[in-house]
Amino acid sequence: MPSESPDRNSRRAGRLPETRTKVGTPLRGHGHWILTVAFNRDGTVLASGGFDGTVRLWELARHGLLCSPLDGNDGSVNSVAFNPAGTLLAFGTVGSTVQWWDPTTGERIRSSPTGHRSSVNAVAFRPDGSLLASAGEDGTVLLWDPATGEQVCAPLRGHDDLVQAARTVTFSPDGTLLATGGDDGVARLWELG
Amino acid sequence: MPSESPDRNSRRAGRLPETRTKVGTPLRGHGHWILTVAFNRDGTVLASGGFDGTVRLWELARHGLLCSPLDGNDGSVNSVAFNPAGTLLAFGTVGSTVQWWDPTTGERIRSSPTGHRSSVNAVAFRPDGSLLASAGEDGTVLLWDPATGEQVCAPLRGHDDLVQAARTVTFSPDGTLLATGGDDGVARLWELG
Repeated sequence: MPSESPDRNSRRAGRLPETRTKVGTPLRGHGHWILTVAFNRDGTVLASGGFDGTVRLWELARHGLLCSPLDGNDGSVNSVAFNPAGTLLAFGTVGSTVQWWDPTTGERIRSSPTGHRSSVNAVAFRPDGSLLASAGEDGTVLLWDPATGEQVCAPLRGHDDLVQAARTVTFSPDGTLLATGGDDGVARLWELG
Repeated sequence: MPSESPDRNSRRAGRLPETRTKVGTPLRGHGHWILTVAFNRDGTVLASGGFDGTVRLWELARHGLLCSPLDGNDGSVNSVAFNPAGTLLAFGTVGSTVQWWDPTTGERIRSSPTGHRSSVNAVAFRPDGSLLASAGEDGTVLLWDPATGEQVCAPLRGHDDLVQAARTVTFSPDGTLLATGGDDGVARLWELG
C-alpha cells in the first residue's frame, strides 16, 4: 500500500505525483470567508478580502502581513484589485463604497461612497491602469479615474430593469472595450475610446 | 434643462460627459443570469457563461454569435477562461465538471467529470497556459494539463474541514505560485515549480 492516503480522484486519473508543495503556513487572520484574492503585478504581495470587511496584504517574502489589516468599515469586501503599477489597491464593499488604498503603506487614500446604490460586486482595472470599473448590485457599471477617485462619465446603464446585479465585468486586453454580464441574461460591450 | 436625464450620482460627481457608448445591441440569448464573462487575448471573442448551463461565444467583429451555444449539459456555468493562445476554452459547472472546448469551432473537446465532488466555482489558466486550476465547492483545488485534460498532481488540500468553497483562485503573474482563499478564512500559497 502506498503511504500517501489514496484518493478517488487521483486513482481515476492514474499515477499522480505528490500534492504540490504548500508554501509556508496558512495565512490566517480573516475571521470569515475570503471572497477575493489578487496578486500585485510583480508577485510580491497578495491581497485577500473577505466577509469580515477587511483586506489583508501578505508580503510573500516574509510570508506575513505587510501592515495592519485594511479595515474598510463598510461590510463585506467582495472584490479587490491592484493597479498595474502596484501603487494603488481598490476594493468594493457590500456597503456600496469603492475604496482606494496605498498598498505599500496600508493607508486609505479615499473612499468613494456616492457611486453605487447597493453592493459593489466587482472592481477591475483597465490593463493600462487608467480606469477602474466597478459593477454594482444596482445593475450599473461605473468608470473611475484612479488618480482622483472621481467618475469619468455617467453610469453605464445597459442592462434591463430586471437586473439584480452586474455580475461580472472585464476589460478587453487592449483596454478599448469593457464587457459586462447581468442578471438579465444580457452581455453588453462598451466602447471606451 | 439639459436633455439627458439627470442622475443623482452624476450630479454629485459634477459635470460628467455623456455615458460612454454602448457597442451595438445587447448580446441576448442566455435565458438567465450571466455569471462569468471573459475575452480571448486578442479581444476578438467574448465568452459569456451562465445559469442556463451554456457558454456563448460572441464574435465582436460581427456583434453576434460565433457558433451555436456551447451546452455543458451540467448545470450552471460558474467560471469560464480562455487559454492565452485562444485555442482552448475551459469552464466549470455546478455539476462538478471541468469542460474543454475549442473556441474557434464551438466543439467540445472533452469533459473531466471526475475531479471535484461538487460545484466548480472557479477556473483560471496559468499565464503561460501550461496549467489550469479549478476550485471547487468541496474545498479542493485541482491542477490540470490543458493538453490532455488530466490532473497533473493530487488535489491541493490546504483549507480546513470547515471550508465550504474554495472561493477564489489566482496565479501569480510569473506563474510560479497559486493563491487560494477559502471559506475557512485562510489564504494559501502553492509553489508550482
